Amino acid sequence: MKLLILNGPNLNRLGKREPGIYGAETLEDVERKLDKVALLHGVELSFFQSNWEGALIDRIHEAEDAGLDGIVFNPGAFTHYSIALRDAVASVDVPVIEIHISNIHSREPFRETSVIAPVCIGQLAGFGTYGYELAFHAFLLRGKGV
Amino acid sequence: MKLLILNGPNLNRLGKREPGIYGAETLEDVERKLDKVALLHGVELSFFQSNWEGALIDRIHEAEDAGLDGIVFNPGAFTHYSIALRDAVASVDVPVIEIHISNIHSREPFRETSVIAPVCIGQLAGFGTYGYELAFHAFLLRGKGV
Amino acid sequence: MKLLILNGPNLNRLGKREPGIYGAETLEDVERKLDKVALLHGVELSFFQSNWEGALIDRIHEAEDAGLDGIVFNPGAFTHYSIALRDAVASVDVPVIEIHISNIHSREPFRETSVIAPVCIGQLAGFGTYGYELAFHAFLLRGKGV
Amino acid sequence: MKLLILNGPNLNRLGKREPGIYGAETLEDVERKLDKVALLHGVELSFFQSNWEGALIDRIHEAEDAGLDGIVFNPGAFTHYSIALRDAVASVDVPVIEIHISNIHSREPFRETSVIAPVCIGQLAGFGTYGYELAFHAFLLRGKGV
Amino acid sequence: MKLLILNGPNLNRLGKREPGIYGAETLEDVERKLDKVALLHGVELSFFQSNWEGALIDRIHEAEDAGLDGIVFNPGAFTHYSIALRDAVASVDVPVIEIHISNIHSREPFRETSVIAPVCIGQLAGFGTYGYELAFHAFLLRGKGV
Amino acid sequence: MKLLILNGPNLNRLGKREPGIYGAETLEDVERKLDKVALLHGVELSFFQSNWEGALIDRIHEAEDAGLDGIVFNPGAFTHYSIALRDAVASVDVPVIEIHISNIHSREPFRETSVIAPVCIGQLAGFGTYGYELAFHAFLLRGKGV
Amino acid sequence: MKLLILNGPNLNRLGKREPGIYGAETLEDVERKLDKVALLHGVELSFFQSNWEGALIDRIHEAEDAGLDGIVFNPGAFTHYSIALRDAVASVDVPVIEIHISNIHSREPFRETSVIAPVCIGQLAGFGTYGYELAFHAFLLRGKGV
Amino acid sequence: MKLLILNGPNLNRLGKREPGIYGAETLEDVERKLDKVALLHGVELSFFQSNWEGALIDRIHEAEDAGLDGIVFNPGAFTHYSIALRDAVASVDVPVIEIHISNIHSREPFRETSVIAPVCIGQLAGFGTYGYELAFHAFLLRGKGV
Amino acid sequence: MKLLILNGPNLNRLGKREPGIYGAETLEDVERKLDKVALLHGVELSFFQSNWEGALIDRIHEAEDAGLDGIVFNPGAFTHYSIALRDAVASVDVPVIEIHISNIHSREPFRETSVIAPVCIGQLAGFGTYGYELAFHAFLLRGKGV
Amino acid sequence: MKLLILNGPNLNRLGKREPGIYGAETLEDVERKLDKVALLHGVELSFFQSNWEGALIDRIHEAEDAGLDGIVFNPGAFTHYSIALRDAVASVDVPVIEIHISNIHSREPFRETSVIAPVCIGQLAGFGTYGYELAFHAFLLRGKGV
Amino acid sequence: MKLLILNGPNLNRLGKREPGIYGAETLEDVERKLDKVALLHGVELSFFQSNWEGALIDRIHEAEDAGLDGIVFNPGAFTHYSIALRDAVASVDVPVIEIHISNIHSREPFRETSVIAPVCIGQLAGFGTYGYELAFHAFLLRGKGV
Amino acid sequence: MKLLILNGPNLNRLGKREPGIYGAETLEDVERKLDKVALLHGVELSFFQSNWEGALIDRIHEAEDAGLDGIVFNPGAFTHYSIALRDAVASVDVPVIEIHISNIHSREPFRETSVIAPVCIGQLAGFGTYGYELAFHAFLLRGKGV
Repeated sequence: MKLLILNGPNLNRLGKREPGIYGAETLEDVERKLDKVALLHGVELSFFQSNWEGALIDRIHEAEDAGLDGIVFNPGAFTHYSIALRDAVASVDVPVIEIHISNIHSREPFRETSVIAPVCIGQLAGFGTYGYELAFHAFLLRGKGV
Repeated sequence: MKLLILNGPNLNRLGKREPGIYGAETLEDVERKLDKVALLHGVELSFFQSNWEGALIDRIHEAEDAGLDGIVFNPGAFTHYSIALRDAVASVDVPVIEIHISNIHSREPFRETSVIAPVCIGQLAGFGTYGYELAFHAFLLRGKGV
Repeated sequence: MKLLILNGPNLNRLGKREPGIYGAETLEDVERKLDKVALLHGVELSFFQSNWEGALIDRIHEAEDAGLDGIVFNPGAFTHYSIALRDAVASVDVPVIEIHISNIHSREPFRETSVIAPVCIGQLAGFGTYGYELAFHAFLLRGKGV
Repeated sequence: MKLLILNGPNLNRLGKREPGIYGAETLEDVERKLDKVALLHGVELSFFQSNWEGALIDRIHEAEDAGLDGIVFNPGAFTHYSIALRDAVASVDVPVIEIHISNIHSREPFRETSVIAPVCIGQLAGFGTYGYELAFHAFLLRGKGV
Repeated sequence: MKLLILNGPNLNRLGKREPGIYGAETLEDVERKLDKVALLHGVELSFFQSNWEGALIDRIHEAEDAGLDGIVFNPGAFTHYSIALRDAVASVDVPVIEIHISNIHSREPFRETSVIAPVCIGQLAGFGTYGYELAFHAFLLRGKGV
Repeated sequence: MKLLILNGPNLNRLGKREPGIYGAETLEDVERKLDKVALLHGVELSFFQSNWEGALIDRIHEAEDAGLDGIVFNPGAFTHYSIALRDAVASVDVPVIEIHISNIHSREPFRETSVIAPVCIGQLAGFGTYGYELAFHAFLLRGKGV
Repeated sequence: MKLLILNGPNLNRLGKREPGIYGAETLEDVERKLDKVALLHGVELSFFQSNWEGALIDRIHEAEDAGLDGIVFNPGAFTHYSIALRDAVASVDVPVIEIHISNIHSREPFRETSVIAPVCIGQLAGFGTYGYELAFHAFLLRGKGV
Repeated sequence: MKLLILNGPNLNRLGKREPGIYGAETLEDVERKLDKVALLHGVELSFFQSNWEGALIDRIHEAEDAGLDGIVFNPGAFTHYSIALRDAVASVDVPVIEIHISNIHSREPFRETSVIAPVCIGQLAGFGTYGYELAFHAFLLRGKGV
Repeated sequence: MKLLILNGPNLNRLGKREPGIYGAETLEDVERKLDKVALLHGVELSFFQSNWEGALIDRIHEAEDAGLDGIVFNPGAFTHYSIALRDAVASVDVPVIEIHISNIHSREPFRETSVIAPVCIGQLAGFGTYGYELAFHAFLLRGKGV
Repeated sequence: MKLLILNGPNLNRLGKREPGIYGAETLEDVERKLDKVALLHGVELSFFQSNWEGALIDRIHEAEDAGLDGIVFNPGAFTHYSIALRDAVASVDVPVIEIHISNIHSREPFRETSVIAPVCIGQLAGFGTYGYELAFHAFLLRGKGV
Repeated sequence: MKLLILNGPNLNRLGKREPGIYGAETLEDVERKLDKVALLHGVELSFFQSNWEGALIDRIHEAEDAGLDGIVFNPGAFTHYSIALRDAVASVDVPVIEIHISNIHSREPFRETSVIAPVCIGQLAGFGTYGYELAFHAFLLRGKGV
Repeated sequence: MKLLILNGPNLNRLGKREPGIYGAETLEDVERKLDKVALLHGVELSFFQSNWEGALIDRIHEAEDAGLDGIVFNPGAFTHYSIALRDAVASVDVPVIEIHISNIHSREPFRETSVIAPVCIGQLAGFGTYGYELAFHAFLLRGKGV
């Protein structure tokens, strides 16, 4: 099983950015932790983060050719307006799980709406950086047809 | 660790109700599967389902006295209007995870909004009946301070 | 043919409650009159009224097992917000007709919207207590494939 | 008792138009069936269909002079915007029942609102072409003071 | 004079629930204090609290037969959506005063709207648990025709 | 000076239709009274009423060729939705005054908005059938460059 | 007959203020012209203009004691938000006509709504400074019971 | 204890203005009655009414220097739009109770919203002129720390 | 190939009506130009214009019997509210292209919405009177399966 | 160059009012500081503050006669609803700069909208009491045609 | 004549992406077909596609220097939110035609609105990949001043 | 003091783009002028303009490491929708001032709202290219703690 952990704008600032909301771990910490879990389950992980909408769209397009089995996608602020990313997800045959570190339902009203979630398998939000691991497990359970 | 799996209205019809949306497993199947996973992790599970808003509120109130460490809560249709349940969750010191079997973001517009999620730890939706297991893992990871 | 006449909150106050809007007949009067009509057409009627949303949901769930051919349902005020009742109706294979005694289109704006009607066969409103008899006839005509 | 069965725009296409929504019967079939039922009850029926809003308004105005006891009115698409028809109904002393063949509550959102129903006795929708017969019965029951 | 002090969902958690908003007194404390005041004024008080909408509706219906002169009603979260409770209040000839402990106008926007207040005598909010005593005085003043 | 008094749908029912709102005078009464006033001022009046939107549009188009100096237009219910009439008024070089018999600002909310008034000289409403005479005077004053 | 010509904020700038919208006549010009017309009809006119909402409210209150038969009121920008002026008009038994010099229906959207018109006899807008004379005539016609 | 009874626009018309809504007592009657109650409780009352927003703001500002312990404030129509009054209340350290004579929740929709209540202790509405006395008691109870 | 060029209200005023928006060509000019192009491509054109909604509906109904291959339809102002025309288009098996001479997206906001376009093949707007020729080409390209 | 520093309601409370939002300087401090800066640049400053909308309107009207070159205007809460002030600004030929001490974009939603800014040169907000000095510089730069 | 065929995000997936909506042709197929048509008419075509908003803006800016006579622009999902692209189009003197392959009026509601169309010549949607050819013809016809 | 002058999309077209709105100066002119002012005050300026949202986000992230004391940011059209830029500003500890050349409050309604301003120090708009110099002064005054 091959999965991509895809992170959108400002997630490179994780650990540095508003730690009251997003925690003190850096994105590198999160990725290292995920790599350990992946090793245990024999899953091949790749990572990509960009602040550029176009770069994220390109990467999603490549997912199909790259034979990916799934994408764990934190679109950051693009969640709320990037219909281009929504269409990118809809244009590939690779299942996508949308994830948010904070509970987007208890923040500013505009953060409650995702234009991308309707074309994903599902969405999870509020579990801190564990959320990535949960999404990883979601793909495992799904793969096993549990 | 003691967790309550709490299910709201119409979830007793799982497996019988609109299987195209909710799948063919019954609530009993789901609970049995969860019990096995719980056994593996030494977690004590209890289950409660009701179509009665008042019964769900009462049960949430009891959670504190019962020494529960968390509630995995699928409020069903109450998600979208039961502010009484929201206040019940806010009135106890037990963390709650909101879960939905279907992807509420790709259905009727009114299903996209949760009045309860803002007072939960987080929300996950769209993972079928695996969602309960994911929520269970979320509590485990949280407990371990992973 | 077996039909259930199901009445929601405050309909037990019929005849006593705002007679300018709902008329002077009691619910018992209405039920007795319907029983006579049913006898004429060889239809088996049962009646249930409750002010409790949960009780109404439970009763709708039982309808399938009870081999009912249809439900004439006046959800009262639940019409306008009980998505749980909507999901209950959608979760059984028994056809439901929504009925209102008063013309909900000429009262407060919030009474014009039904969250339940979209999953019913149809809706009728404004015919006073005759409405129940009309709904009864609707099932007869439907049954005859007229 | 004298009743008018009044049909608005595109109902002359009944049977030919979107049969998945409106059924395979033509308007003539419906009228013939209603005539038989009327004969049984000694009711005098007249029929009028027009795609022209002005023609429908004129006909409603004539209803009073014509000594009609009621109008069964399917305003078709005019339901949703013709305030002129609403005012026409309000301007005569003849009771009107609004009827729709399809369940307007389970279609496009704009079909849920009627600008005419508030000045009618009531509205019924979703009973297919039986709806006309139900409206006919509604006038009978009303006439008998049942 | 006979008055009912009626409390809706989560008010049994008073003192335990979000004390920053609702204060540290329990519902029992409040009731005991009210009883003392009632004794002074020769008023007969009864108390009822429920988390169940149906139970509250039933209790309001009984108020008329019980010869109550008024109800002091804190509908809790039902304030904002229970049209069934609104209709229950409208269906009895007993005057009702709506009361809230916190100032609902300075909290979440959805708390500002009451679907029940339009059919009450009046509403008071923000006076802490004294509010019950104020509502009690409102009935006294009203009774005296001051 | 040549003026057209143009009346839209249901104004042929004036005097018969909801006299509480529109008064007891018929349209003929109003026209006769206007003719007397016109005679006094040497103004040539013509009258047209129709329940047909198309007929009103055609008549407005003819106004330019007919050398009219102005139109006093009561569009009735078309006021609120007939953008086709708005465009007809905008398409001719004849000034138009919109008039309403009742005070449209103190009735149903939808009656407050005119889609036609923005392309008229002005609007007057609430002066009963005197309104026509006022509009007549408006054209006189305007003509005199008072 | 005694009438008050009441003008709200910025109307003292008439002639100086945005002449493209409001014309080149000053308020004094308008008042002098009205005085001449009033003399002809034996009507006693008084005039008041203020930029102060409170002053306008006080003046409306005095109207009853002053035995006024009517007020021609141009509330200027207060039209759109001064509910206090609306209540002042509603609190006296003197009929009020609302007038606007420009066509408020063809300007910024917020100018289309009047919070005062619902409690006036009627409203006229778009007739330039003639509008005052038309409102004057409206009172004359009304007085004569024409 | 020193309290100010502050009344906004049109309340000087109490007793004369729409008695169906506001009752037949004049503001002087109300103030005299309150003075008697105050005497009993050793409270020093002052009274101020104005139709001028600026005068009310000035008076609220003076409250702090005047050593007032509270203001009972009926802002009249300013309730619904005077953010300047809201800011005035927020700018002083004197607690304010908002009061309305009529039940603002059962009148025009725009009367339901208060821009001032969010910065007050609380709001009470619908108790007629007793409301002032209730607000007085609210300050007493609050003072006693009951 | 047989096509109908169908024009709605006020398009008979083309060339005369607001030439700044719609250009100086008359409808006859446009039709003559189209006839020449049609001759070149061996297409049989018919033309119909009406200001009457009913006439347009009737003509669309006849299109199926008349063996038309397509309709180029400029509904004029009906675009924005005539659901009856929408239903007429949906009721026939003849493909329809909606066309507008001006760019409806850069005018009044209400012109941006079409209730008819959702049941057409497509919509084109802003190309002046060339738009008809483009729509004609659209049918040619479609016919050739290019 | 002659400039007016104009301040609206509650700004006389500066330094005393919600210092967390508005800072600890009084309006007098601000004015004294501005006077020093003005002296340096040879600009003649005048100051006016009022809690009375009418007084502010009058002062703006006088600006033209007074030969002012500009107004630095902090309308306080009037920013959000005083269309009368908007019209006053539009009615004079003196340029106006709108200024706010706090960042109105990060407070309550209603503070984000200014009804006055559209008729000003520009708006600046969030710079504390320096904002006045910035606005002063804006007029200087503008005067120099920099 | 020199034209640019400009395509936005996800259009590189044409043929692969949701073929039920967008058809089976690839973007290369479309470009090759257009090149043939351009050759016939002596038009010089260039092509550019990007998933990057910035790249599209840059390309539009270059259009003026490149001496382009027009741009056929399919902004993909940017249509619905990229005001930056709207401003880019408005910032150059090159005419732009907006095109969509699918009928955006019969899909999700958010696809109906274009923030870019108001600054284009016009918009066409729903003609499949022929749409590009139609837009090409639109420029030809425009160029010829047909 | 080190400041960054950051410009968003289409500002490279300054001087060329809609000069009626944005003036005739180019961005280079503006930057040169600012450099002179900076030299006078011993401030070190850097400049960056991009049409690419990602490039602007990256640059804001670098600001912290680069030891910047502030950013003067004109986000162009991104102002109205780029929540990603908002989050970028919130993710760094460098104060940001939002600036607009034109008065965004007197243009299209969508330009009035900034999603970025709530996380900035403040916003200024409408001062033409002087605005940059004003923002520069704002940082100076702030730095001096004036």
